[in-house]
Amino acid sequence: MARAIAASERARGTTSPNPPVGCVLLDAGGAVVGEGATRPPGRAHAEVVALAQAGERARGGTAVVTLEPCAHQGRTPPCANALLDAGVARVVHAVADPNPRAAGGAGVLRAAGVEVVGGVLAREVARGPLRAWLHFARTGRPHVTWKYAATLDGRVAAADGTSRWISSPESRAEVHELRTRVDAIVVGTGTVRTDDPRLTARGPDGVQYGGRQPLRVVVGTSDLPPGARVLDDEAETVHLRTHDPDVVLAELAARGVVDVLLEGGPTLAGAFAGAGRVDRVLAYLAPKFLGDGPPALRDAGVSTVTDAVGLVVEQVSMCGPDVRVSAVASGAAR
Amino acid sequence: MARAIAASERARGTTSPNPPVGCVLLDAGGAVVGEGATRPPGRAHAEVVALAQAGERARGGTAVVTLEPCAHQGRTPPCANALLDAGVARVVHAVADPNPRAAGGAGVLRAAGVEVVGGVLAREVARGPLRAWLHFARTGRPHVTWKYAATLDGRVAAADGTSRWISSPESRAEVHELRTRVDAIVVGTGTVRTDDPRLTARGPDGVQYGGRQPLRVVVGTSDLPPGARVLDDEAETVHLRTHDPDVVLAELAARGVVDVLLEGGPTLAGAFAGAGRVDRVLAYLAPKFLGDGPPALRDAGVSTVTDAVGLVVEQVSMCGPDVRVSAVASGAAR
Repeated sequence: MARAIAASERARGTTSPNPPVGCVLLDAGGAVVGEGATRPPGRAHAEVVALAQAGERARGGTAVVTLEPCAHQGRTPPCANALLDAGVARVVHAVADPNPRAAGGAGVLRAAGVEVVGGVLAREVARGPLRAWLHFARTGRPHVTWKYAATLDGRVAAADGTSRWISSPESRAEVHELRTRVDAIVVGTGTVRTDDPRLTARGPDGVQYGGRQPLRVVVGTSDLPPGARVLDDEAETVHLRTHDPDVVLAELAARGVVDVLLEGGPTLAGAFAGAGRVDRVLAYLAPKFLGDGPPALRDAGVSTVTDAVGLVVEQVSMCGPDVRVSAVASGAAR
Repeated sequence: MARAIAASERARGTTSPNPPVGCVLLDAGGAVVGEGATRPPGRAHAEVVALAQAGERARGGTAVVTLEPCAHQGRTPPCANALLDAGVARVVHAVADPNPRAAGGAGVLRAAGVEVVGGVLAREVARGPLRAWLHFARTGRPHVTWKYAATLDGRVAAADGTSRWISSPESRAEVHELRTRVDAIVVGTGTVRTDDPRLTARGPDGVQYGGRQPLRVVVGTSDLPPGARVLDDEAETVHLRTHDPDVVLAELAARGVVDVLLEGGPTLAGAFAGAGRVDRVLAYLAPKFLGDGPPALRDAGVSTVTDAVGLVVEQVSMCGPDVRVSAVASGAAR
């Protein structure tokens, strides 16, 4: 399953609105004979990719999948049937399919005499590669990770507005890597005006990662400055003239976006946090003090301490010299 | 040595201006026959306490000490001589004595034929129970730990001023425990006016810990409100009418204070951080967002990002639901 999770993780950012599933096929003797991950929308699901690799060797073997195989006809035929056709004897999956239309794969397989084991490393998968998609399946809203880099005293820039660089090269590299795994990056018009970011996923050498770049989304009613870097050809950009997080998320859902990285400044982050639309926070805290300058978050609609937006820390660790805190909205903790 | 370090740690907060040293005595066969820690000023040092316990069994044995035994006559006779008189054959110590007047204990012992091994777990001791004293010996200034509790977005109170409780019961209990191990707690007059804290070390039941309470120090030129809790009889309080961190530290050094816990608000913390007088930071970050309200730090004299006060994270961990970050001033990293 660890290998299927790794395949799942590698497919992140390329499969939405489908889940980035990973599948490993073992033959009857337990040897790996196929491995696959979900292809982009309209193309093969993970199981089908792995089955194509395995061919006849899948017969009597085991399929290890991060998500319960689907049983419904979408743009591609149901995976449960593909597994049956290939003669797979056993299916081990992590997370059960929460989608009422797709669910039932385990039932179809069992009815056909296949041994099905569910729940294996389910927590790892649900917190890992399938987190955003499961949230989307449950709520109909894209999953929002608010990422910010601040000093230990919560400043995202100094009094004079300078912010390069608050976080370390290690943290910045990690964020670029993270960008390759999301569907969209959201900022406000203020950030575009102030920082003129490219919002592309680039390697430490400054060169764009190959393959798909996430959708660049600028939120706010003011016009974008002509010549802003987000308007270049390096990735697609959409400007949403609203301040309402739910309008933003509905528009993004309609575009097939499941996993959103919110990189906005204090005001946009405040709007999302205040509306309960920050599902996860990824904070890079640099071991520095500024004592002045803009805070990470503003105007979240909280006036008294008992109304604070509650989170649960999932992980705290170091990223180079910085402290990395990953926390989820209290309601989303599992 | 681990046992000597534990004894050293237990003595913290009771020995200043002397170091809280721990000593374990083994007989010639390696069995523990004595254990001691520095007594309050003017009373026995750790080695003497342990020797008194061991009596004749120390002869031919080993003394394990967190600090190189002193060789000078202070208010008590030199420990090196006491070890010689007892016939100890071997001395294992962690940290070498940085005090020019006291140093030379190892030399005195070696000259008398005792085997001396230094540097054992020196880093643990130097970062642990002897950190403040070593800083004091090096700089002549008390060691300052700035402790604060803030939300993940760096707020120490909400917009309406409420701050109870930003941090968890676990974090608050830990801070009370920490108070028992320092010599003085420093706040500003603003904190006294706003929060009217007691600044005593209390157990989770609200009852004061037995034994010594740290000196309560209020800094600032305004008068204290009559009836302020810091003026009660539960511990000694001193009001220093200045805003200059160095004046505060000189005054405290003159009173034998070595280890200071700065619990001040944003302005006092800013004055200390800006003056380079925060040697260590202990931040309890609650997994909450406020988006408004006073920041943890203000007016540290930094206007541009490259002038930020630099720190090095020593440890990051959880304290109940909160993230605990321990960091030291960049120059102090070892």
